[in-house]
Amino acid sequence: MSIVSAFDQAMMAKALQLAAKGTYSTHPNPRVGCVITINEQIIASGWHKRAGEPHAELEALNCLPAGVAKGATVYVTLEPCSHHGRTPPCSDALIAAGVRRVVIAMEDPNPLVAGKGIKYLQAAGIDVICGVLEAEAKALNAGFIKRMCEGLPYVRCKAAMSLDGATAMENGESQWITGPAARVDVHKLRAKSAAVITGIGTVLADDPALNVRLTKEQLPEITEQKFPPVRVLLDSQLRIPLTARLLHTKGKVIIVHSPGVAIDQQRALREKGIELWEMEHDSSEKIHLTAVLKKLAQAEINDVLLEAGAKLAGAFLAEQLIDELVIYTAPVLMGSQTRPVFYTPHWNSMLDKVKLKIADWRQVGDDWRLIAYPAYE
Amino acid sequence: MSIVSAFDQAMMAKALQLAAKGTYSTHPNPRVGCVITINEQIIASGWHKRAGEPHAELEALNCLPAGVAKGATVYVTLEPCSHHGRTPPCSDALIAAGVRRVVIAMEDPNPLVAGKGIKYLQAAGIDVICGVLEAEAKALNAGFIKRMCEGLPYVRCKAAMSLDGATAMENGESQWITGPAARVDVHKLRAKSAAVITGIGTVLADDPALNVRLTKEQLPEITEQKFPPVRVLLDSQLRIPLTARLLHTKGKVIIVHSPGVAIDQQRALREKGIELWEMEHDSSEKIHLTAVLKKLAQAEINDVLLEAGAKLAGAFLAEQLIDELVIYTAPVLMGSQTRPVFYTPHWNSMLDKVKLKIADWRQVGDDWRLIAYPAYE
Repeated sequence: MSIVSAFDQAMMAKALQLAAKGTYSTHPNPRVGCVITINEQIIASGWHKRAGEPHAELEALNCLPAGVAKGATVYVTLEPCSHHGRTPPCSDALIAAGVRRVVIAMEDPNPLVAGKGIKYLQAAGIDVICGVLEAEAKALNAGFIKRMCEGLPYVRCKAAMSLDGATAMENGESQWITGPAARVDVHKLRAKSAAVITGIGTVLADDPALNVRLTKEQLPEITEQKFPPVRVLLDSQLRIPLTARLLHTKGKVIIVHSPGVAIDQQRALREKGIELWEMEHDSSEKIHLTAVLKKLAQAEINDVLLEAGAKLAGAFLAEQLIDELVIYTAPVLMGSQTRPVFYTPHWNSMLDKVKLKIADWRQVGDDWRLIAYPAYE
Repeated sequence: MSIVSAFDQAMMAKALQLAAKGTYSTHPNPRVGCVITINEQIIASGWHKRAGEPHAELEALNCLPAGVAKGATVYVTLEPCSHHGRTPPCSDALIAAGVRRVVIAMEDPNPLVAGKGIKYLQAAGIDVICGVLEAEAKALNAGFIKRMCEGLPYVRCKAAMSLDGATAMENGESQWITGPAARVDVHKLRAKSAAVITGIGTVLADDPALNVRLTKEQLPEITEQKFPPVRVLLDSQLRIPLTARLLHTKGKVIIVHSPGVAIDQQRALREKGIELWEMEHDSSEKIHLTAVLKKLAQAEINDVLLEAGAKLAGAFLAEQLIDELVIYTAPVLMGSQTRPVFYTPHWNSMLDKVKLKIADWRQVGDDWRLIAYPAYE
């Protein structure tokens, strides 16, 4: 077992930077980067661009003439695969290339395969280290990991509010609380999500398109993106107007509704190419949120962005389904005649409060963006 | 007119640091610091400790044997006085000492005297510069300046809330949203205020003492403080219970009430040494807030800390009487069945919102403290 050096960590950091280039394009696959060195010199590097294209290890190996990688050290942000997926297993390629040492940031999160790739490499006589910059690697693929481990997507909830916690006036007036820089940032959140979820209330009130509207200047990686986020609407009674902007902008739309409602509307929506998911609702006649998320995970959705009003966001929070909060706070006070971020009708005691772990809080334009993780009890 | 050098700015910065030592003790006087140099060497310095004791210039001059200050440069954070107040005018002492040059951060804010001290020094042949680190000097004495210029105290509003803007559950449950570090910080805010204002609602709900409870370790300057903040209760109907903690803790208490109410209660409170201010209320039977603030300014109160519930804080905000907000945000979500920071029943449009200029936002213990200035329109 070799020791992890500062050089190893620096190379893994570089591999992570490469992996991050896939943030907007790899899903449903994880973001993975790879660096190959000989005698502490980088001889090749690569990153996974999108599903169906080579994995990061092959991207890097393919840069090299045959035989050059013999005795090399390979840094890869995720345990190399040892099974046939869309592409042949990377472990075989590493063994065939004759590499001496493989440094890995994290194991494959799928509990059924975790560690098998490592054992496979070790069995071939390769020196393997795992766990270098593991936390950073996990953060990069939170959605993929959650889907693999729990069969659920990672849910990021976005909100825009005043400093005193208002998202709109009581009458619904809300445009614009936050400024243009925050709105561009939201489009980047959408771009890195495989799906955006909203509720019928938001569609009826604001008629949003919920698509990604970014220029190459605002997000150069957008050019790599082949699969814009699926837009998912929870609309139990299928109340969406056929004129809604959601239905007239490019990209896939899924509408989740209760069984047997509005048959004519169902037909009209299908004719527009909309995918309808008829799902049982829970005892209080609400769509069963966990069931929707499970079905999205089955459809290989890793990361979901929740952009919803107080009722739906409050339901997600109360059911402990939110993994990450991204809250844009505008430097204004809106007072008491307003709508909250989370409508939580059943929380009546301080014991119901949700603690947050704050990861980042910084200025974005004139607004402040908080990133935090709920610590449910 | 001489040029302001980097050395001049460094010396003024030092004088401001000295002035700040009086933060908890000089009121009703301003915080003032002074540094005396010869040939770019500091020969003396001083700061004003409390009313009745020497001004900063004399504190510094008094360190020196007679004649030593001849030809010196004097840095002082506020225009030296040229009139007899509680002490003889400092300008005379500077002239008598034979100083060559006086560098001043800001003019006397009193419009009736501003500039007179400068002219007086100049008439004696002294080279005078004013405006060095002026913004910093003004920030140090915001309360004194506001009282001098507008006949009103500077109102700092403190609030503690959840990240989603709740100060309590609907039933009033609120202890404790923020943690011990934030609570110590609030006591420091109290300590640097000449008065703390609250409303009867808060007294009936929480029974606070509103006094300063800090050890020397928590605030060394507390030992200089001779005048703890006056506690001011707005209680139009004199509903305060005679057992209230406010009435049984050391320090002056003023209760503002409507004319002719609860005569027996008035007598009982006076017997306890409580000062009663009978004041006319406005058309909606509320105590006239501006009138209260004016009367506090007449009583030489520079800085007021408002520690009130949503109704009183909302009234201060809606009447544009808050100069500064200090909001402690706990990293928790409390949801919708909660009380807001500001109750503003008449704000029904986004046009009513108050923009904020954010001055500082940092972590205090596990909580986050925001300092911001409302920009009323």
